[in-house]
Amino acid sequence: MDGSVVKRIACIGSGNVASSLLPALYGAGYKIVQVCSRNLQTAQQLAKVVGATSTDKLTDINPNVDIYIIAVPDDEIENVLRKTTFGDGIVVHTSGSTPMGIFAKRDIPHYGVFYPLQVFTRHSVNFMRVPLYVEASDSIAMDELLFMARKLSVEVYKITSEKRMLLHIAAVFACNFSNHLLTIAARLLHDEELSYLSLKPLIKETFERAMQVDNPEQLQTGPAARGDSKIVNHHIEALAGYPLTQQIYKLISESIMGKELDAKNVEL
Amino acid sequence: MDGSVVKRIACIGSGNVASSLLPALYGAGYKIVQVCSRNLQTAQQLAKVVGATSTDKLTDINPNVDIYIIAVPDDEIENVLRKTTFGDGIVVHTSGSTPMGIFAKRDIPHYGVFYPLQVFTRHSVNFMRVPLYVEASDSIAMDELLFMARKLSVEVYKITSEKRMLLHIAAVFACNFSNHLLTIAARLLHDEELSYLSLKPLIKETFERAMQVDNPEQLQTGPAARGDSKIVNHHIEALAGYPLTQQIYKLISESIMGKELDAKNVEL
Repeated sequence: MDGSVVKRIACIGSGNVASSLLPALYGAGYKIVQVCSRNLQTAQQLAKVVGATSTDKLTDINPNVDIYIIAVPDDEIENVLRKTTFGDGIVVHTSGSTPMGIFAKRDIPHYGVFYPLQVFTRHSVNFMRVPLYVEASDSIAMDELLFMARKLSVEVYKITSEKRMLLHIAAVFACNFSNHLLTIAARLLHDEELSYLSLKPLIKETFERAMQVDNPEQLQTGPAARGDSKIVNHHIEALAGYPLTQQIYKLISESIMGKELDAKNVEL
Repeated sequence: MDGSVVKRIACIGSGNVASSLLPALYGAGYKIVQVCSRNLQTAQQLAKVVGATSTDKLTDINPNVDIYIIAVPDDEIENVLRKTTFGDGIVVHTSGSTPMGIFAKRDIPHYGVFYPLQVFTRHSVNFMRVPLYVEASDSIAMDELLFMARKLSVEVYKITSEKRMLLHIAAVFACNFSNHLLTIAARLLHDEELSYLSLKPLIKETFERAMQVDNPEQLQTGPAARGDSKIVNHHIEALAGYPLTQQIYKLISESIMGKELDAKNVEL
């Protein structure tokens, strides 16, 4: 590993992860050689930002790069691997839940996973605070990926595929699912001709408090946390017009009331 | 309604709502006469802050006040009403989900509901931005409660018991349930010996974005939002050790995938 040699990168994918990751790598001194995407327009746009060439053909992938980054939706990684002939560079994907084993049956000498734990949108993210989780097939790949990760972020961890998936699941609960609960709240209010905006002070307070603790359980409030099953039942009745939302209300209330702990205890 | 007459208030309850509301009313120029709570110690502490007397006996409630505020858990309101002899003042509770009808069978001339939509903890809250929802038995009570609400907050609304409960349910989803999802995430990470702290940048980003839009649905990301049922199923399998959490994962994913909309369409 010689810091004075500029490493060359090709990227397959031009979506949110690629659009955040490539400019950060470019800024960290990497040479972005090529962006490949079936959406040629976004590939061209991103390539322009990082001084790369662009293509929409997997068969045109440059064979002379050090690291190939596959930043596509999980269910397309397999397809990309099947159609691409890589050079000798390290091949990584950026997925939370696809096992590294997906590379094993391919004729790829060095491979790994480079998983950034963040919600990426097209706007820029300060990568220095994004936790990066790295897995690799061997020490050569691991050294290269750790070096790259540490160029980008102060939070770099090695992780197994199994733990990475659990981390992704935790992120789905904390981020994707929380956002959906806000959506449910907005939908209920909309149907009653009430304003979602009035909830914002409450949402702000909730999450500012959650950011200040190590375990959000200690902040739990509400009817279920108080064990007020009368109110819980009133709410469940009031949601009769929303059968799925009603089920979600019921299950989360049970979970707050500690039923999960019982279930786990039974199994242990 | 004469602004020059100092109105007198007695409060039953010395918990989080009372501890936030009474100092705000005191600051707005109301005379807090009495704090009554079965927990005499917290009643005394709160009474001292707002210059009131304290008692732990409902039979000692002062008969000469303008407004009685019942700020106790929902399932104790009935009990308070049964045991207390009020004077001629307006009697209100502060609950989101208890109908105003709870007062109807009592011999109380004027009554209502005064519901602040906020998470109250013992620390002080800037009441000026807390939405206040008011309901009243008659125009005399309504005028008095609206006057009081507008002394405290710039966001004051009239609302029916039915809509107030839906508002409370929306708040439970957005606040209580979101916090529980963070708790589930923290629990999963803890069991994998991973740090909840690494999730914080993600949580921060999620909620800062949610504060900036009118409908959080437009921000929805993640495997379910992408329709990636392969990853969704992998996650469900990985949660086999957490049956209730697994069910929650499944239902919220279905809800994100729009099953609720189908269910509602069938019913309409």
